[in-house]
Amino acid sequence: MKATFMYAAGDVRVESVPDPEIFFPTDAIVRTTRSCICGSDLHPYHSLPGTPDGISMGHELIGVVEEIGAEVRTVKKGDFVIVPFAFSDNICVFCREGFHTACVHGGWYGTAAAAGLQAEYGRVPLADGSLVVVPGVDPATADESLLASLLTLSDVYLTGYHGAHMGEVAPGKTVTVVGDGAVGLGAVLASRQLGAERIILMGRHKARTDLGVEFGATDVVAARGEEGVAEVMDLTNGEGSHVVIEAVGHMPAYEQSFGIVRPGGIISRVGVPQYESAPIGFGSLFGKNARLAGGPAPVRAYLEAAVQQVLDGVIDPGRVFDRTVSFDDVALGYAAMDERSALKVMLTP
Amino acid sequence: MKATFMYAAGDVRVESVPDPEIFFPTDAIVRTTRSCICGSDLHPYHSLPGTPDGISMGHELIGVVEEIGAEVRTVKKGDFVIVPFAFSDNICVFCREGFHTACVHGGWYGTAAAAGLQAEYGRVPLADGSLVVVPGVDPATADESLLASLLTLSDVYLTGYHGAHMGEVAPGKTVTVVGDGAVGLGAVLASRQLGAERIILMGRHKARTDLGVEFGATDVVAARGEEGVAEVMDLTNGEGSHVVIEAVGHMPAYEQSFGIVRPGGIISRVGVPQYESAPIGFGSLFGKNARLAGGPAPVRAYLEAAVQQVLDGVIDPGRVFDRTVSFDDVALGYAAMDERSALKVMLTP
Repeated sequence: MKATFMYAAGDVRVESVPDPEIFFPTDAIVRTTRSCICGSDLHPYHSLPGTPDGISMGHELIGVVEEIGAEVRTVKKGDFVIVPFAFSDNICVFCREGFHTACVHGGWYGTAAAAGLQAEYGRVPLADGSLVVVPGVDPATADESLLASLLTLSDVYLTGYHGAHMGEVAPGKTVTVVGDGAVGLGAVLASRQLGAERIILMGRHKARTDLGVEFGATDVVAARGEEGVAEVMDLTNGEGSHVVIEAVGHMPAYEQSFGIVRPGGIISRVGVPQYESAPIGFGSLFGKNARLAGGPAPVRAYLEAAVQQVLDGVIDPGRVFDRTVSFDDVALGYAAMDERSALKVMLTP
Repeated sequence: MKATFMYAAGDVRVESVPDPEIFFPTDAIVRTTRSCICGSDLHPYHSLPGTPDGISMGHELIGVVEEIGAEVRTVKKGDFVIVPFAFSDNICVFCREGFHTACVHGGWYGTAAAAGLQAEYGRVPLADGSLVVVPGVDPATADESLLASLLTLSDVYLTGYHGAHMGEVAPGKTVTVVGDGAVGLGAVLASRQLGAERIILMGRHKARTDLGVEFGATDVVAARGEEGVAEVMDLTNGEGSHVVIEAVGHMPAYEQSFGIVRPGGIISRVGVPQYESAPIGFGSLFGKNARLAGGPAPVRAYLEAAVQQVLDGVIDPGRVFDRTVSFDDVALGYAAMDERSALKVMLTP
């Protein structure tokens, strides 16, 4: 099958590798309907040192179950499924508490435990715990827009949703989303679903913030840094935002976040932090009782409800995809996202 | 009247100053029944550079209203009241959201806005918003133990309570309290009130941790650092603590906190951080979706309910006081707390 590997910063290749096989009796093999490229894939695309054996890429996938291990009970061959970006048993103590990305038996794709999912087939460990069946949809005949929205439930939309959920977005609240990437736009849509009264989107790419407005943003702030903070404070009557969803991961976005969070408010981070230490003392968080939340999204916790919302046409998060390439052209997809000529790139077999 | 000033690290003096007067029509003058020394007063006691004019000390007080300004409506001369450690109008947007320490019109004692409260009288700004009357108690005849417990509602117990509240302590949760000072012990008592299933107290002073056990701690861990983290992880079946209340404020206590917090758990800080930047990236908070909360306690938000609990004998937080001195001996009180020969020192006129 075709699978995607990165050998160094900027060097992404599709190669032919053996099809995956059942390894553990709890595995399933899924034939890819659609996969995609994640904003987080751009971090190694910028910084990966030369790696002779390459690293296996991708963690988002929807597809059809091709084969199951002897112990798999909840999915069967032919089921159309969503593969969450982290696998989990869905029964351990942390999964039961809703934090599947901390599953005692779980793990990540593109590691020794499981190959990456930018490939024609994926081996999914802990299939019973991980996979969620999409009922009544035949991917061979489904609308492209439906497939796109279902694909976002593998990671990007539900990562934005996690930001809103951990930020405790609720009716009456003012939410500011820092970052107009696909996760940030998902956070806007999720905040609207959770009833936010006002949604301020901080971003500078008009095509993206325009989609943000369609997703529910009530205000767009293009300025950054101190100027951006001042604009958001003005928009909130000098009070600041109840919830700030930080969907970038770089320090300036975090600094903006504690500049605009309201006393007692919550900064919810879903951009993977590209820093370890950051201000949290009296002058940043403590003095105003600002809270900090967020982390890798336990999308499995939110999947059933979100699948139903997509099937019911309540949400259309697939609109973040603005380019589709075949696996043969995956390098072009990475380049397009890196140049920001594409917001999010879908991959087809 | 007698009032307390600090002139340099280790140099605390009682001096005779003019009695305070009504300055704003919203002020009240309160005659001190009891005041006390706070753990946070030890920070300048360790580090204050020579200050020729001295700084006015103290922010905890219970007493009797002696005089009110023309606009004061909710308290009257003769009322026995609790003075929260920060004054607030109790009606601004942040007060209404429960964060009185961010009151738009509020402020702190020992500043240009209001003198310190380790004194025979205090001028309380925004008296209607700040003061809470204790019904049916005559401080001249009340039990010492009742006065002690009421005095803790000015700051120390309700600061511990704030830690538990922001940590979302609830039935079934495991709580670890880092620090066996008076705030930490208050956090133990508050966690018991909020129904915590298990309360682990990290502290090395046996007399204090013994009181912690009487307040509800189910386990005591004397070890610190990596060893302390390992012990708490063992006690929690390797899972970590749902809630960690950090009642110290120094970096090692914060590092212990993120070492023992469970995935998805909350670190709630009520020790004033003596650092600004600290680890919050993938390796500390983000990777396990750990949350961070806390700040200066809005004790005004919790006062009415806590006063009733004290009057009903449900809680006895005044047991943290283990020494009483007169204002003339306030320097001895500071020295005793600094040497740790006293846990918390009460001041009498």
